[in-house]
Amino acid sequence: MLKLFWAPHTCALASHIALEEAGANYTLARVDFRANEQRKPSYLAINPKGRVPALVTDRGTLTETPAILAFVAQSFPKALLAPLEDPFAFAKMQAFNSYLCSTVHVAHAHRVRGYRWADDPAAIKEMQRKVPQTVGECFALIDEDMVAGPWVMGSAYTICDPYLFTLAQWLDGDGVDIARFPKVADHSRRMSERPAVAKAIAMELA
Amino acid sequence: MLKLFWAPHTCALASHIALEEAGANYTLARVDFRANEQRKPSYLAINPKGRVPALVTDRGTLTETPAILAFVAQSFPKALLAPLEDPFAFAKMQAFNSYLCSTVHVAHAHRVRGYRWADDPAAIKEMQRKVPQTVGECFALIDEDMVAGPWVMGSAYTICDPYLFTLAQWLDGDGVDIARFPKVADHSRRMSERPAVAKAIAMELA
Repeated sequence: MLKLFWAPHTCALASHIALEEAGANYTLARVDFRANEQRKPSYLAINPKGRVPALVTDRGTLTETPAILAFVAQSFPKALLAPLEDPFAFAKMQAFNSYLCSTVHVAHAHRVRGYRWADDPAAIKEMQRKVPQTVGECFALIDEDMVAGPWVMGSAYTICDPYLFTLAQWLDGDGVDIARFPKVADHSRRMSERPAVAKAIAMELA
Repeated sequence: MLKLFWAPHTCALASHIALEEAGANYTLARVDFRANEQRKPSYLAINPKGRVPALVTDRGTLTETPAILAFVAQSFPKALLAPLEDPFAFAKMQAFNSYLCSTVHVAHAHRVRGYRWADDPAAIKEMQRKVPQTVGECFALIDEDMVAGPWVMGSAYTICDPYLFTLAQWLDGDGVDIARFPKVADHSRRMSERPAVAKAIAMELA
């Protein structure tokens, strides 16, 4: 049995959707960020990084969205969530997810978690000011160069799709109009219509 | 034939070492950051993100260190650089590499590339001030919780090892004493003794 530790409005949604798409047998465990539960010893014993997502498996705990997504795709091959037999295509898919975690998510994080990289309130405010620009530049590049369409990798739906969908949810809060990115906007609309996506979101709202 | 676009003192060294370890047939192409070559149209045609590494293959170009590393491991399975038949072990390995790219490399980047997230010189200086703390905290966690020893994943050398080695090279410049992290320091020493590592470094210095 798999158990996904998650919190609302975090990138854990991508792993949650992937588990749904895979038809996995899993349970959810909500981590209460408002109570700072992610920094308490009981959660740090699960994930010493104090972040979500964390996926507890029979063999141990996995962290980091790109790793969890590839694990789900490899563990449920019948769901066809990744080109598992093609190292080049698999790497293209992983490159997209790596860009999301190391550049796009990081750009966004400077709005809400600037304290990670600075203590001075003026510096944190300056970081927040630049977020619409940096996040907007990331999504411009994604829209122009990375989304093959209709899904990220082209005709095949993969683990890139729930991850892009999840980070696109944050655009409005970051002060970036998704309408500037027609492929991303279309992608988000079609993602919302997928039963697995609707179910995952409903579970998180429940 | 594979062609690796790289620049000195960047994370491209990790992919370079992996290609050496794999016994791959490849060439190097240096990108001159001092001449801002990474932002010129000729390089943006290769990698629109304007960064290194980029690995040109017969099928197209791959970017992002974790993706390139997994591609090398999957493309040269005889080199035994990853647990390719074990999705859980593969995911543990990928989680480590994902942490390096999304958290450790990002913490370091606030010293030399703070302009990515702020324009105000005072804010950029404040980011630089905090780098020894944030990078130090990352490596403390790596040393305590992530390096199984003697290699990152335990007895098997994997694509985590050149990546950790590469980022550990930056500790001194970041104002962090590697001696605080005995496992990481020992790892760097043993990495330096590997012929593939010595050859990759010599090629970059040539």
